[in-house]
Amino acid sequence: MPATLMNQRDLEFMLYELFDSEALTSRDRYQDHDRQTFNEVVNTAKIIAEKYFLPIRQKLDTHQPTFDGKKVHIIPELKTAIDAVNESGIGAATADYELGGMQLPPIIASAAGAYLSVAGGVGMGYNMLTTANANLLQAHGNAELIETWVKPMREGRFMGTMAMTEPGSGSALGDLITKAVKADDGTYRITGNKIYISGGDHDLSDNIVHLVLARIQGAPKGVKGISLFVVPKFLLNDDGSIGADNDVALAGLFHKMGGRAQTSTALSFGEKQGSIGYLVGEEHCGLKYMFHMMNEARIMVGTSGAVLAVAGYQYSVDYAKNRPQGRLPSCKDPQSPMVNIIEHADVKRMLLAQKAYAEGAMALVLYGTQLSDDELTAVTVEQRQHAHILLDFLTPIIKTWPSEYGPKANSLAIQVMGGHGYINEHPVEMFYRDNRLNPIHEGTTGIQSLDLLTRKVPMNNLQGYKATLAEMVITIDEAKHYPSLHEFSSQLTQAVATLSTTTETVLAAMSTKNIDLALANSVKYLELFGHVIIAWLWLKQSIVATKAIAEQPHQADMDFYQGKLLACQYFYRFELPKINVWSNLLVTTDSTSFDMQPDWF
Amino acid sequence: MPATLMNQRDLEFMLYELFDSEALTSRDRYQDHDRQTFNEVVNTAKIIAEKYFLPIRQKLDTHQPTFDGKKVHIIPELKTAIDAVNESGIGAATADYELGGMQLPPIIASAAGAYLSVAGGVGMGYNMLTTANANLLQAHGNAELIETWVKPMREGRFMGTMAMTEPGSGSALGDLITKAVKADDGTYRITGNKIYISGGDHDLSDNIVHLVLARIQGAPKGVKGISLFVVPKFLLNDDGSIGADNDVALAGLFHKMGGRAQTSTALSFGEKQGSIGYLVGEEHCGLKYMFHMMNEARIMVGTSGAVLAVAGYQYSVDYAKNRPQGRLPSCKDPQSPMVNIIEHADVKRMLLAQKAYAEGAMALVLYGTQLSDDELTAVTVEQRQHAHILLDFLTPIIKTWPSEYGPKANSLAIQVMGGHGYINEHPVEMFYRDNRLNPIHEGTTGIQSLDLLTRKVPMNNLQGYKATLAEMVITIDEAKHYPSLHEFSSQLTQAVATLSTTTETVLAAMSTKNIDLALANSVKYLELFGHVIIAWLWLKQSIVATKAIAEQPHQADMDFYQGKLLACQYFYRFELPKINVWSNLLVTTDSTSFDMQPDWF
Repeated sequence: MPATLMNQRDLEFMLYELFDSEALTSRDRYQDHDRQTFNEVVNTAKIIAEKYFLPIRQKLDTHQPTFDGKKVHIIPELKTAIDAVNESGIGAATADYELGGMQLPPIIASAAGAYLSVAGGVGMGYNMLTTANANLLQAHGNAELIETWVKPMREGRFMGTMAMTEPGSGSALGDLITKAVKADDGTYRITGNKIYISGGDHDLSDNIVHLVLARIQGAPKGVKGISLFVVPKFLLNDDGSIGADNDVALAGLFHKMGGRAQTSTALSFGEKQGSIGYLVGEEHCGLKYMFHMMNEARIMVGTSGAVLAVAGYQYSVDYAKNRPQGRLPSCKDPQSPMVNIIEHADVKRMLLAQKAYAEGAMALVLYGTQLSDDELTAVTVEQRQHAHILLDFLTPIIKTWPSEYGPKANSLAIQVMGGHGYINEHPVEMFYRDNRLNPIHEGTTGIQSLDLLTRKVPMNNLQGYKATLAEMVITIDEAKHYPSLHEFSSQLTQAVATLSTTTETVLAAMSTKNIDLALANSVKYLELFGHVIIAWLWLKQSIVATKAIAEQPHQADMDFYQGKLLACQYFYRFELPKINVWSNLLVTTDSTSFDMQPDWF
Repeated sequence: MPATLMNQRDLEFMLYELFDSEALTSRDRYQDHDRQTFNEVVNTAKIIAEKYFLPIRQKLDTHQPTFDGKKVHIIPELKTAIDAVNESGIGAATADYELGGMQLPPIIASAAGAYLSVAGGVGMGYNMLTTANANLLQAHGNAELIETWVKPMREGRFMGTMAMTEPGSGSALGDLITKAVKADDGTYRITGNKIYISGGDHDLSDNIVHLVLARIQGAPKGVKGISLFVVPKFLLNDDGSIGADNDVALAGLFHKMGGRAQTSTALSFGEKQGSIGYLVGEEHCGLKYMFHMMNEARIMVGTSGAVLAVAGYQYSVDYAKNRPQGRLPSCKDPQSPMVNIIEHADVKRMLLAQKAYAEGAMALVLYGTQLSDDELTAVTVEQRQHAHILLDFLTPIIKTWPSEYGPKANSLAIQVMGGHGYINEHPVEMFYRDNRLNPIHEGTTGIQSLDLLTRKVPMNNLQGYKATLAEMVITIDEAKHYPSLHEFSSQLTQAVATLSTTTETVLAAMSTKNIDLALANSVKYLELFGHVIIAWLWLKQSIVATKAIAEQPHQADMDFYQGKLLACQYFYRFELPKINVWSNLLVTTDSTSFDMQPDWF
């Protein structure tokens, strides 16, 4: 069966109809670009994806990296593929020209990256982490750090990691114990153990630049005593060439259910003489800097959830269109020919659900990506500030919703294909396994929900929260001009009201009741908010589709827009009503989970 | 971490408090048994599970069977483990004494089997299919077939399969094309290809007894032209010893996401001279016989979904009780000690959800297992008939609900454990993969939902449907005696009313509207019905718990019963209200999926 990596028509819809990316070319930073160069980049990514990654996708999954006690072995084809990405420039697509970048808008890079991600499994994860690492250093490192480490990362010669998690503390970063001791030369000696470090060791680059969170001797306890260090695998000689080993030892590889192309490592820093670390920014401010990378990584995780959902959806649609089996209930004649399974209503339901999840999630992550661009490059200060407020607020939702609903979409892709979906002859079972990591890493769903309720909502007198609701109201008002969208606009109006009431009750409970009780159902609040946001983005898509249909486009486009409207309808009828169940738990401050005692399990 | 395979206290609750299994000893068939022999069997299974299966569980997953073109290779430890089961007699626990069985009630065999399943992954699948195969032959085969094939299967010398699915027709059995031609000696020559045949080849037994669906030359098209044959891998000599190869060739092994210990095979029958097949029962009645095995297999699938859910739940509870991380939101002091994660409300929520799914599903499958016993061994004809009606009706729900909610429970087990849940150091990621097959095999969820709505509900003037609702009303009436259960009994009353209204509307739509439209949301109907059934079984459990608490049991039991009540509350507050969303789609005969066109995807 031919592999359709992404739905090109839908990507065009997202980029140019839903989010008007072409308008970005009027910004100074992007003045050298036009829609044609955007498309060329996306197309180049598609070609590299099909030529270098797709042929090795399954091999990357079945030949996961191994460690023989001395070296990590990854199939060498991966390096060839990553080199091809770097040579094309896409590896540093969004970076400044002077740092070897192409100064492309992030949303275009994201569309290009989607092809590479689908074809390469998580092989592209090495590049994406490297980019996020470089971006952090560029924002918070001094000139020397940038010159020394960022440039080779942009060129693909070095790769980067984020080294936060420790065996004893997991998600609770405030309890990390990796130590940093200042040396006479101003550098630090780092000692400690980190686990689950993605890309923590491999042979894909000349060097690995670890960004390590550690506690300087005498620092306060908790998150306020954490500093950030560059700790390279190899030190550099004065001429920039690779120098001595920096005492960063691979303690082991983890064997994961999915995402197997990307090493997940346990690292020991400084077991012999102490690893040399270079402080980033100020002492004790490390977590703030790390959040620069973490926020970017959270959008990357959401994007991964969305892209894998699209991939499984595309694949199962292709399968359903070409697999004859059974007859409709209305047909009782066993002599009649079989129908393709896409004719069965329940298969259509499962495909619609995937479409609603996948394209809803894709719209959300591209929206977030565009906001991350706007906060830096939008024309006015007000626009930049507005984008910053929205992105800051929405990050937990952008990270979580695609991560939670992407795997659900992948499960449906398996189900559409039946037994064929469960075997590794087809990639959907791999998507399902790969995607299951997304609700875990870069802050679990539970942690995102606490971030949303305890920080993001109350922040600056509900500024981000109110700005988000205002965006929804704008869309609702626009939708009211289209009678065919009345069902959706009125339902979203009601959903926003439910969200408001729920938010007020929860905030009141947080200040008047036991805080542990008030937050006990925080994940349900995040899920509720996520559903309302996705409903909003589906309404936005439906407005575009409705306008386009009015212009009587050619048949293929007409079909495409009809599909958008039906997927929107699916979401509003099958999914959105669930918010009432969640709202009810929240407005009553349901105490079931809070009341449960450990000994009762 | 110590492995707790099953929750022994909960199994005792299910067997002796929820379903009075001890009363079974008053039936003639079980007169040699008492509670002590029941417990001994379960305990023997536990010992075998821990001694033979648990040590190889991960190895079975990572060393899946291979085929070198001549022979299938499975790690030899599996044969040792299966031999231990057969030697203990548990392999044929429910069979008659004269066939080498122990004449144990199926519910006791099921409890014993749960330990073996959890410890052995799907290694026990070979035995379970063999038992179901033998049961079919015993019910529908003639004396010669029983003597020749059933006996060695009961002894574990031969193993059995069910060979239904074909590459061209999948779930649509009516379209199968495997041919049978009658020979002069009364046997048949079978030719054709079958796929996804579990246990279709291996070296665990002396012979393999395939039950093959095929079409006799000249038979009518569709399901009414299908016959059933015994087609052994090896023919037998007159003295019963293994004879000539029967031209059943292994065409390939499938590589599955989970359940890897059990071979899934493509088989070619009769490529050379035709495989010899022995007709079971009458010509053209094969599908009816196969349903004997399939119904049993459907309960086995539901049981697998439930048992794997319990396994993941147990494991993640143990982990959460022993893993310190973070502090409660009410604690702002970074100097204070970390709490075990089971203290976090959201972790408790995820454990409660698992408990509600896993123990709800377990109650359902044990109820179904008891019905399958009652329909044969209950004392009066009326009781047997009543059990038959209920089981026949409930089979699609017993198969589906645990299959759909088991994987959801396993996903939560992963989430509780975070990164540790995603790596193969812990078994929960394997449970998640293994369990994902259950909504697919032995009739997908979609197929079960059509079976429920088009056959089971209307059958005999809604006989099974009404009998099921009547059972629920009995429980509601009993619950009304306990004020603390009022919330649940009144909610279940309402849920039964919703189910009734929904059923009436759907049945009306099926007779007045386009049948393809009327059935378009059949899966939502199945899900709704399943949720009401599980709510009912939780109410039953709560009645037992409430009575027990009133007797002021010792602390450990008090904790256990409190847990039951909270899990029930979780299900009623977090899950049951979803039925209103599904009901609304059904009573409005929502046409979204029906209206969607293939070209719009």
